[in-house]
Amino acid sequence: MKRDLQPDPNDLIATEIDHLRELLAQGQGKRARRLLKKMHPAKIASLLETLTPAQRVAAWHQVEARTEDKVRAHLSATLRARLARDLEIEAAAESDPDSRHLDGPPEDEPETQLRLVLEALEEGKLKRIARLFRKLHPARIAGLLESLPATERAAAWDMIDGERTAKVLRHLQEEVRRRLAAEMDLDHLVEAARGLEPDDLVDLIQDLPMATGRQILEAMDRRERERLQSMLSYPEDSAGGLMNMDQIAVRANIRVGTLLRYLRLREDLPPNTDKFFVIDRKQHYQGVLRTRRVLTARPETLVSELMETDFEPVPADQPSDAVARRFEEEDLSSAPVVDADGRLLGRITVDDVVDVIREQAAHAIMGMAGLDEETDMFAPVLASSRRRAVWLGINLITAFLAAWVIGLFEGTLQQVVALAVLMPIVASMGGIAGSQTLTLVIRGLATGQLGGGNTRILLLKEAGIGLLNGLLWALVVAALAILWFGDWAIGGIIAVAILLNLLCAALSGVAIPLLMRRFGIDPALAGSVVLTTVTDIVGFFAFLGLATVVLL
Amino acid sequence: MKRDLQPDPNDLIATEIDHLRELLAQGQGKRARRLLKKMHPAKIASLLETLTPAQRVAAWHQVEARTEDKVRAHLSATLRARLARDLEIEAAAESDPDSRHLDGPPEDEPETQLRLVLEALEEGKLKRIARLFRKLHPARIAGLLESLPATERAAAWDMIDGERTAKVLRHLQEEVRRRLAAEMDLDHLVEAARGLEPDDLVDLIQDLPMATGRQILEAMDRRERERLQSMLSYPEDSAGGLMNMDQIAVRANIRVGTLLRYLRLREDLPPNTDKFFVIDRKQHYQGVLRTRRVLTARPETLVSELMETDFEPVPADQPSDAVARRFEEEDLSSAPVVDADGRLLGRITVDDVVDVIREQAAHAIMGMAGLDEETDMFAPVLASSRRRAVWLGINLITAFLAAWVIGLFEGTLQQVVALAVLMPIVASMGGIAGSQTLTLVIRGLATGQLGGGNTRILLLKEAGIGLLNGLLWALVVAALAILWFGDWAIGGIIAVAILLNLLCAALSGVAIPLLMRRFGIDPALAGSVVLTTVTDIVGFFAFLGLATVVLL
Repeated sequence: MKRDLQPDPNDLIATEIDHLRELLAQGQGKRARRLLKKMHPAKIASLLETLTPAQRVAAWHQVEARTEDKVRAHLSATLRARLARDLEIEAAAESDPDSRHLDGPPEDEPETQLRLVLEALEEGKLKRIARLFRKLHPARIAGLLESLPATERAAAWDMIDGERTAKVLRHLQEEVRRRLAAEMDLDHLVEAARGLEPDDLVDLIQDLPMATGRQILEAMDRRERERLQSMLSYPEDSAGGLMNMDQIAVRANIRVGTLLRYLRLREDLPPNTDKFFVIDRKQHYQGVLRTRRVLTARPETLVSELMETDFEPVPADQPSDAVARRFEEEDLSSAPVVDADGRLLGRITVDDVVDVIREQAAHAIMGMAGLDEETDMFAPVLASSRRRAVWLGINLITAFLAAWVIGLFEGTLQQVVALAVLMPIVASMGGIAGSQTLTLVIRGLATGQLGGGNTRILLLKEAGIGLLNGLLWALVVAALAILWFGDWAIGGIIAVAILLNLLCAALSGVAIPLLMRRFGIDPALAGSVVLTTVTDIVGFFAFLGLATVVLL
Repeated sequence: MKRDLQPDPNDLIATEIDHLRELLAQGQGKRARRLLKKMHPAKIASLLETLTPAQRVAAWHQVEARTEDKVRAHLSATLRARLARDLEIEAAAESDPDSRHLDGPPEDEPETQLRLVLEALEEGKLKRIARLFRKLHPARIAGLLESLPATERAAAWDMIDGERTAKVLRHLQEEVRRRLAAEMDLDHLVEAARGLEPDDLVDLIQDLPMATGRQILEAMDRRERERLQSMLSYPEDSAGGLMNMDQIAVRANIRVGTLLRYLRLREDLPPNTDKFFVIDRKQHYQGVLRTRRVLTARPETLVSELMETDFEPVPADQPSDAVARRFEEEDLSSAPVVDADGRLLGRITVDDVVDVIREQAAHAIMGMAGLDEETDMFAPVLASSRRRAVWLGINLITAFLAAWVIGLFEGTLQQVVALAVLMPIVASMGGIAGSQTLTLVIRGLATGQLGGGNTRILLLKEAGIGLLNGLLWALVVAALAILWFGDWAIGGIIAVAILLNLLCAALSGVAIPLLMRRFGIDPALAGSVVLTTVTDIVGFFAFLGLATVVLL
């Protein structure tokens, strides 16, 4: 039909109203929402005028939080009042304590909040989410968004007030942030970006496609843009990538009274300001002045009398895990960041360090299951499948290696089928013992407590444990095997195999991560695959090999 | 010999000198150290007088840092000067850049420091450790001590200056701290305890044997003791166990100028003081007053004008992980702790929260390998073996369960030995896929993002991934199996078994941790054992069962 290609505007509104009415009647909130999202606020307002009160409230639920005010401005005064009253009545009915959640946990429980959001999404009452979000801390909203699957997440995302978008964005984890940012239109994204602190904005830009990142940068004023560009020049996981530029720098030759007058003019200080930084004329870092010293000093005291010159600044290229370790060891709240010439560039605050520590921990745990990249629990099935397939593929290679070793002894297995029954036990015990040692060593490497002379001591200790536990479990398994199959030879063979495998597991548990690190591979990621390959192969080979020699 | 039972004092000194001289000549530093440790400072001094200069320096290296000054006081003036000179000469020779570590990394690298300590221990030059320790932050010293095996650790421990013992103790991890504290004599322990902040002291007392803890408490003054006892009444992993009592509380009706005068009298504030807490006459918490507001306010302003009344205090019985999450979400530096009646009890600071987060992360990682209790990398072999044996024993039960399933199909295996070769592949792929899902779910539970309605959505997503990856790897494995054994039936059987096992792995990966949590078991600890038991059993049963039906 030609009319569809070049539609008459009035006709189109009529068609859209019909379509919308139909969607609302069918409870198709999602599609109504998508339709409304693309419409101009004035058009939405004129649409609302034509709807019945019930339809109007239902449609209103699907309007984005950030266009709400604009739509309202286009409504006639009577309709505006009418809509407000209808919404109030609905809200009152919903929050009636008799009608819902009588026995449930209170509303400040994360689980209850999540249930509220999911229910609201299902019933198409999206303004209920907006009401909940208004009461919550941005970090909590971010947590709720991360708990939602992709489409539901987008719907809930639209219910965040315009000015809080940036704060929520800041608290979202990388993958979720990237996915939501990719769906936002540029204006919205730039608006949100303006509300972010420089370090978070730099993170966001690094996550976005190049072109989008550049467009955001271009929308900033020149000074801000130059700042951001200089921060973007440092790797994300370095002090330069962690720092903010909201520090307060003072000169050593001013008096506390002068500083206090200046601070009063500022009216507020950036969060986590426990120190001011003392610099010279050429921006060179000279020391720190703790706010608590300012609070307790007389106004006539000079900054130079109160400053500490032995507080080491953080070099901008220091890796973020070293920064985190220092913050943790010295219980810091903030620290100055300097360039190679000792010029003050910015500061790192403890809240960003806490994030680094959390991310490291998540990385370590997820990495062990090959899930390093999968931070979004509700990533699309296809994306998740693809990422996990890699890990399964690597594992398949090692499984086939183990199978190949078993295959070498097909003849033996054919004659003594009990060996096939018992052989997984040998491999499994080795794998568990080895992973214990491996975990300990990986942790030692991560905390910097292993290396520089004590690895030999640890190796001996682990070998000792392997020997003791090897002897213990060799005897237990041998006894059970003899009871089961009534064959003393098999008992002896499995005992020796287990002892050998546990010793080998201890040695590989120490050696594998150390070797991997020397070759620049993260042992937390691939260590356990390599280790179980070794313990499987050694276990099967020792057990079936011994059996071939002894029994045949 | 009777003389040994009732020795003549002079004879004994003579014997001891001979013995010591012998030990030093043989390079037996450790035994010399143990001997000196038990001697009175005056006696050590008189011993030193009788030694040759070289012996004297060697013996001096073995003297504890905390008795150094006392021994020195008992030495004659000439000898004291002589010893000082000899030590200086030695120190100068050691720090001579030509003689050592020319190409090595700088001395502020943890690995270099560790190597220095180990070398010093080996050569018996313990004062070198004392010199290094004097330059290091207590947290770094703690890290070095944790990197040492038990006997070496005790020797290095004795080289810490008396007044820094407490600070190092505070930074040590629980197990190491307990072990070192157990070896300290009570006087030394009480002296160190006095230097600890209340929250750390409470941790220490909770770690020590009851009797020792009570003795430390009794050595405190009454006010301090009552404080500690009230803190000890809260569980270690609750807000009450985390808090300190160094908060500064103010009344709402005073002026900023008055507060500043009070602060000047104090001269310094506790670390991480970003807020003062406002209380009423009866100690009820009313709100917070941020230090940055004080810095930027005029002196005549009332506290009530600047305070924030909407800052929620932390209930003393709140679990520490909830406290950590709030600090992280709201980027807090400190927060007030109140009792059930809203009375201010103390405050929690971000440095303790960082420790909680690190401990949780370590717990999660170590727990997966059954190493939950093993925080000391250099725990004695026997203690480590015993703890790890438990985990191996649990694993053995599951391994025997799997073996029992294989045993059901002995007849089939006897006829088609290729099955024995391929069966570990089916189990292994299921185990890996399941642990991916399990890790994701455990993390979701830990962050509070799973539960309350979205588990069903996750289950469907994981099942979808299991189906996709199951189909993919079923085909790959089938193709490889057909190539290997030239048997189409085996290929078909292994394909179906892998698909089934991956689907089952996805479902168990979601269901097992949820069920465990319902029964109050930590899924991070036992989840993977239960999961691999399921995937092993399902894998073997599906593969061998299908083969029995199809091939026989």
